[in-house]
This record gives sequence, C-alpha cells and structure tokens, in this order.
Amino acid sequence: MSELFKANLQKFITMTDEEFALIMGYFEVKTFDKKQNLLEEGQVCHQNYFVLKGLLRKFYINEKGIEQTTDFALESWWMTDNFSFERRTPADFSIQTVEKSEVLAISHDSQEKLLNDFPIMEKYFRCIYHRAFASNQRRVKYIFSYSKEEFYFSFAKQYPEFVQRVPQYLIASFLGFTPEYLSEIRKKSVS
Amino acid sequence: MSELFKANLQKFITMTDEEFALIMGYFEVKTFDKKQNLLEEGQVCHQNYFVLKGLLRKFYINEKGIEQTTDFALESWWMTDNFSFERRTPADFSIQTVEKSEVLAISHDSQEKLLNDFPIMEKYFRCIYHRAFASNQRRVKYIFSYSKEEFYFSFAKQYPEFVQRVPQYLIASFLGFTPEYLSEIRKKSVS
Repeated sequence: MSELFKANLQKFITMTDEEFALIMGYFEVKTFDKKQNLLEEGQVCHQNYFVLKGLLRKFYINEKGIEQTTDFALESWWMTDNFSFERRTPADFSIQTVEKSEVLAISHDSQEKLLNDFPIMEKYFRCIYHRAFASNQRRVKYIFSYSKEEFYFSFAKQYPEFVQRVPQYLIASFLGFTPEYLSEIRKKSVS
Repeated sequence: MSELFKANLQKFITMTDEEFALIMGYFEVKTFDKKQNLLEEGQVCHQNYFVLKGLLRKFYINEKGIEQTTDFALESWWMTDNFSFERRTPADFSIQTVEKSEVLAISHDSQEKLLNDFPIMEKYFRCIYHRAFASNQRRVKYIFSYSKEEFYFSFAKQYPEFVQRVPQYLIASFLGFTPEYLSEIRKKSVS
C-alpha cells in the first residue's frame, strides 16, 4: 500500500529506499469504515491524511442544518482542515469517509519534524500545496462563471471516476444543488 | 523597498544579509501605472509577482463580456496565474494594477533556479502556498454559505483597508454582484 505514497513522492522528489523507509516512520496507517468521521467541525484538526484506498469528503453544516460537501479526496490525494491543522484553531470543516478507507495519517508535530529532518519534503509539500492552490483558484472561476448544468457536465467529464464512485446526493451537495435538480439534469442529458 | 520582502521572508525562514542580497538577485523590480496589464487571459504567464507598493487584481472576462474580479493583492502579497506559471499553459486570468504599483517579478526559470540554489526558499514557498490554499478553501465555504449581504459585511470587517482603497465597482465585481446592489447594501447599513 505504501507504494502508492512512494510513487506520489517520486513525482516531485528523488530519494533512496532507505530514506523512504525512514520517511514512512513519521506516518501511521489507519483504517476507517464507511461514513466514519476523521474530524468534526469545531474540533482542532490534529492530522493530515493521504488516501491509500477509499474516498474521503470534507463538509460543513450550513445555516439550514444541511451538510454542504466542499471537497473529495480519493487515492493519492491529501485531505485535512488546513487552517486548523496549521494554527491549532477549531476546524471549519468535518472530514468523513464515503467508502471504507485506508489512509496515512501524520500529526502536526510529526509533519514539522519530518520537514526538519528531511528538507527534501519541503519541496514535496511546496509542490502539493501549489497545485492544490492553483486548482482552488480555477474552481473559484468555475463557481462564478458556470451555470449549474455546465458545472455538472464539466465535473462529470473531468472526473468520471468520482461520478461513478460517489453517491448522487453527495455530488449534488458538492455542486451546490438539490438531488432532485441533479436527477433532472441527468435525465435531460440522456433524452 | 526590498525591506518589505525581507520582512516577509523572515516570517517563515532565517537567512543572513548576504543570502538575502543573493536571493534578491533572482528578482527584478518593476513599476506599473494604474490600470496597466501585467498579464492578459490566454497568454502564458511568465512571472510571479510580489507587491512592494500598490494593488493588483486578478480577473477574467465572463460569458457576458464583463470583467469578473476574483482576487486582489496588496503589499506583501504574491500574485500570478498559478497553473499557467507552473505549466506554461494559456492563463485563465488577467492581472492588472488597480493603483500605480511597484512589484518584485521573478520568472519561472529564475524561481526554479532560486529554489535549487537556496533550498530554504522551498520552505518559504511551501508556507506561502499552504496559507493561500487554506484561505481559498475557507473562501469556497463562504461563497457557498454566505448571503450576498453577509459576504460584503464579513469582507468589509476582515479587510477594511481593501474597502477604503479599492473602487466600489471592483469590490462589487469581486463579491459577484452589481455596483447598484452594493450601493443598496451600503445604504441599508447606514440607515
């Protein structure tokens, strides 16, 4: 399983097998059942997660008491509440498994120690955060400029795997509309 | 002027005066008049900008032909089209000065060389991108959960300097509504 993490590291940095084994020592492998909470909104987020197998989602409870999903993470993606993890403040989001999942978990202190002991990991996380930031900026553009229908079809085209794996009501929540509306759009696209 | 950049670096990393002088050698100081374009949507973005004085905005032209502002950068903020800068692809956004501005500009090749020659800069950019990513994630939550009025008042409270410096029509564009609507909200808050 750790091969997936090794391959992800090797996209950005080079290291020996010995170094990889030492780097792995900073992480714990954790498994979670479907729909288990890894973090609850309002708690301090102590861990950063790399998905080895399964699927996570990030959400918050909106003013109507409804769960609004904002992000998904499947294999080889990182997920945490970034502000809370960094600053030890209450989390803005909850994190929950969508499927039975296996993750690598690293605590804030271990991540700081890892970055200190293996400065090459600075480069790795610089690249990871840069891409995540770039994607998020593009997303803000899409939120502003796409109609709900365009948003769905662009999403389905860009991430066909998500659309197959993720329950429809979660995709609807992520895209910011009701399951009924999503069902209508899907019917239209077939007819 | 470079003192502002030095102070920003020192928030995250330590370096000697000699090292700082060498690091500065990778940057060019550039000045721009008000409303000058630093980048046009569709071009490849060759530079990453750190604002020494003035104010930049990032925008794109939406399907109605209207400029939609998505970000601002004032003193000590970085701005670029991250995907385009990283991958040499056409930019999703334009970048323009709101005020007469002075910036530090670094090309993609120079930034790669800088990171290679001064690995401590990996840590600096890791921290910069991490914060930018965290802020953007929180922003997605706000876009989903705040009403237009709440969005404006939260923005005005969090960034009073912006609201004073930025023309009202740009704040309206950034918040995703018309100048007329903004004017109405502001009147309501006074009455």
